[in-house]
Amino acid sequence: MLIQEMTRQACLDFLARHKLGRLACSREGQPYITPLYFAHQDAHLYSFSTIGQKIEWMRGNPLVCVEADEVESPQKWSTVIVFGRYEELPKTPEHEAARQLAYSLLQGRPQWWEPGYAKTILGGKERELELVYFRIYITHISGHRASPETSTGQHA
Amino acid sequence: MLIQEMTRQACLDFLARHKLGRLACSREGQPYITPLYFAHQDAHLYSFSTIGQKIEWMRGNPLVCVEADEVESPQKWSTVIVFGRYEELPKTPEHEAARQLAYSLLQGRPQWWEPGYAKTILGGKERELELVYFRIYITHISGHRASPETSTGQHA
Repeated sequence: MLIQEMTRQACLDFLARHKLGRLACSREGQPYITPLYFAHQDAHLYSFSTIGQKIEWMRGNPLVCVEADEVESPQKWSTVIVFGRYEELPKTPEHEAARQLAYSLLQGRPQWWEPGYAKTILGGKERELELVYFRIYITHISGHRASPETSTGQHA
Repeated sequence: MLIQEMTRQACLDFLARHKLGRLACSREGQPYITPLYFAHQDAHLYSFSTIGQKIEWMRGNPLVCVEADEVESPQKWSTVIVFGRYEELPKTPEHEAARQLAYSLLQGRPQWWEPGYAKTILGGKERELELVYFRIYITHISGHRASPETSTGQHA
């Protein structure tokens, strides 16, 4: 198996083709991962969520990581990792343009709406459905691709 | 769609059935996610890796998160999240038993060995293949399962 770095453009192309990844935030040194549906445009990943632990932690510490991967087998996979900064998009005039962009990007894939709107029963009671729009500013992106080795080169 | 909490036992059963998840560690507030092949036994997840950013960060801060999921659709998915503590298993007498356990658990699934042993070309040169065995002590585990709503209850 060979593991090779992906170019920045290959990483961005990979993100543009994917809608499901994982987001990690952290608080007091404790990381926390959740699945994330996102839409990529330019220097940002757009998404939304109901209020909860993830949003509260990102408000406290905006440094996040988003990972997306394709794993066909242990010998054939790609993974792209974004280091980024959480930017909330509240209903204020200064965020209106970005919020509308998020809305239009995410509306293009209707099923994405449902997780955020889901009726959630936790501890026997329904959770309130307050939606938070946000985007992740991409500060660094990298990717690796593994493939079964086909050359006749040395094996370790 | 309904999202419901999984019991602790359901979470552990889920981990026992899965071998691929994502690991997040963090340094100075910056989280970092990588895919992780693991084996679960009792209170630990066992794995190994070549030396690199992930190992260096976990040595600096042992608080980690492991997430495993099954996403069939935006309306049907399960995700299990572990908060845990990194424990390295070096070649020393006090870690020999745990290291042998890791070896036997991971050897049972031969393909798992290959990513760690992979010939990796980064920056035009091969990376050294020094393997680090470790385990994650599970300090907290939780899980959620989403399913398309089948009841005739209220919709938000």
